[in-house]
Amino acid sequence: MKFRIGDREFDRPCLWEEDGSTVIIDQRFLPFSVVLSRMRGIGEMVNAIKTLAVRGAPSIGAFGAYSLSQCISKGEDPERCHRDLITSRPTAVDLGNALDRVMEGYREGGVDGAVGSADSFAGEVVESCRRIGESGKKLISRGTRIMTHCNAGALATLDWGTAVAPIRMAVREGNTPFVWVSETRPLFQGSRLTAWELSQEGIPHRIIVDSASGYVMRSGEVDMIVVGADRVCANGDLANKIGTYGKAVVARELGIPFYVAIPWSTLDPKTSEGDLIPIETRCGGEVESCMGKPMSNPRSASFNPAFDVTPSEYVTGYITPDGILDVHDLREKMRSLMQ
Amino acid sequence: MKFRIGDREFDRPCLWEEDGSTVIIDQRFLPFSVVLSRMRGIGEMVNAIKTLAVRGAPSIGAFGAYSLSQCISKGEDPERCHRDLITSRPTAVDLGNALDRVMEGYREGGVDGAVGSADSFAGEVVESCRRIGESGKKLISRGTRIMTHCNAGALATLDWGTAVAPIRMAVREGNTPFVWVSETRPLFQGSRLTAWELSQEGIPHRIIVDSASGYVMRSGEVDMIVVGADRVCANGDLANKIGTYGKAVVARELGIPFYVAIPWSTLDPKTSEGDLIPIETRCGGEVESCMGKPMSNPRSASFNPAFDVTPSEYVTGYITPDGILDVHDLREKMRSLMQ
Repeated sequence: MKFRIGDREFDRPCLWEEDGSTVIIDQRFLPFSVVLSRMRGIGEMVNAIKTLAVRGAPSIGAFGAYSLSQCISKGEDPERCHRDLITSRPTAVDLGNALDRVMEGYREGGVDGAVGSADSFAGEVVESCRRIGESGKKLISRGTRIMTHCNAGALATLDWGTAVAPIRMAVREGNTPFVWVSETRPLFQGSRLTAWELSQEGIPHRIIVDSASGYVMRSGEVDMIVVGADRVCANGDLANKIGTYGKAVVARELGIPFYVAIPWSTLDPKTSEGDLIPIETRCGGEVESCMGKPMSNPRSASFNPAFDVTPSEYVTGYITPDGILDVHDLREKMRSLMQ
Repeated sequence: MKFRIGDREFDRPCLWEEDGSTVIIDQRFLPFSVVLSRMRGIGEMVNAIKTLAVRGAPSIGAFGAYSLSQCISKGEDPERCHRDLITSRPTAVDLGNALDRVMEGYREGGVDGAVGSADSFAGEVVESCRRIGESGKKLISRGTRIMTHCNAGALATLDWGTAVAPIRMAVREGNTPFVWVSETRPLFQGSRLTAWELSQEGIPHRIIVDSASGYVMRSGEVDMIVVGADRVCANGDLANKIGTYGKAVVARELGIPFYVAIPWSTLDPKTSEGDLIPIETRCGGEVESCMGKPMSNPRSASFNPAFDVTPSEYVTGYITPDGILDVHDLREKMRSLMQ
């Protein structure tokens, strides 16, 4: 999609510039303001990831790759920058995969190799997502009612999206679906970001609170669920935004297909099963307030896991750049990546 | 529990006064302010229910009974007041049961009969909830980890609570459990009200976003779920706050017991099954904002069902004033009520 800010138009929500900085559309302020934030050094870049100014596993990967290559090009210590970036968020695997690519490029080709690797990683993410759209569009007819969670759109992936890519591709071919957007507490990536993306392109949708997913499914109003992922393990288990697991369980109970849309950068063949994925716990303040406004009993503490794990048994299919795979095909792909 | 406002102390969050008004602790302002609101006529009384200034099926029932009897005592038309009150919220059945009692009292004993019926209804609610506590406390040992949803505490029931009554009763006997409080979007009855009640009495608890329930359950951190209900049908299906159904499905998937705590006023033997319960859809603005602060894409609409239906097959047991019933015993009770 195109991101418009005043009279400028951007193809991607995250870019790098010749002066060694990275520039992003700051996702903390959407949809109320479209703000460009410029990150000038490793500290600011790490902070952009930690604070979710940039978010979405593939976007974090691309942003991390850009950031690392920029820091390397400015003569900063690659190992230290790599370490600072890799520890910024633990759950999504794209970041680690992206940083590994940049370090490999650096070892093979110095600064140019690092910059080239970052650029090719970002290009591959976009192309992968376009192909996810091609793979997934065949699931969608006009009026198909799709539920998604969090934001797995262009903001999360530079362009197209993962879960949203099949929707965009279907719309282009005249098969416009209807999208149920669950708001995604605590930070409202569904109602702020996915809803914003869909409304930019005129795709019909409705926002619900996360807790209403079960009701909407049981009412017969959902034909399928499509979500992205932050990491898919060797056995097909996946980590995704908190709330994904509950949706998957209810979907299976009701016989509603549950798809996970992923580029190859989200695969983690080295982790054998979902329960070994590190789950990020974030600050309780995110739960206790809504974008800064206190909302819960001041004397009560909260617990704020940012992701959950959905076992592969709940997944109908994985929408990938190379088609829709079942869990057996996906495991085969994982084994091939390990060889 | 005791409600303290300045140097006054109240046994119940809802009272009637000699001047014909009803007075409530206004639940819209908790926990940030403890405000008494006085309702002087049927319009204000209906509005208090619609706006959730008073909420919780048994509390709505008692408040409705007080309101109707007050209006009757001031010479207003009983039929018209009954009609205005009964249509204020459609899902909870306690209100209808309470109003029927007052009308019956009025027919049999005039104004005194109406006032007496309201008072006896409220008294029975409190006594029922105390007995729910007695019935349910045997499920709880020291440190038992209980998840609840929405507010089924003293605010919702005049005193004790339904889901919270067994917790309070166990605490008194030294078996203090730990409570997982799901915040309950869109209006945060969990994080505002239940958390406030628990912290008033020093009962250990943590708040989570609704979407985190599945994660916490799957992590082995929940020994049982206890919720209240707004209506239980002849076959044992129940309506309760949106999100209850999803929790019940995940609980059964994981083998976690799921209990529903109810006074007899919540039974609706005339409605055969859950899918016949009218589900209230509330204003989308509740989803699109957090207590007045806009939170979602301004160009997107939302859908806001306030309740969902949980089929009886997901219920481990019904915690009632007369013990813990399985679905067969509950159905038997329902049949006896119809005779």
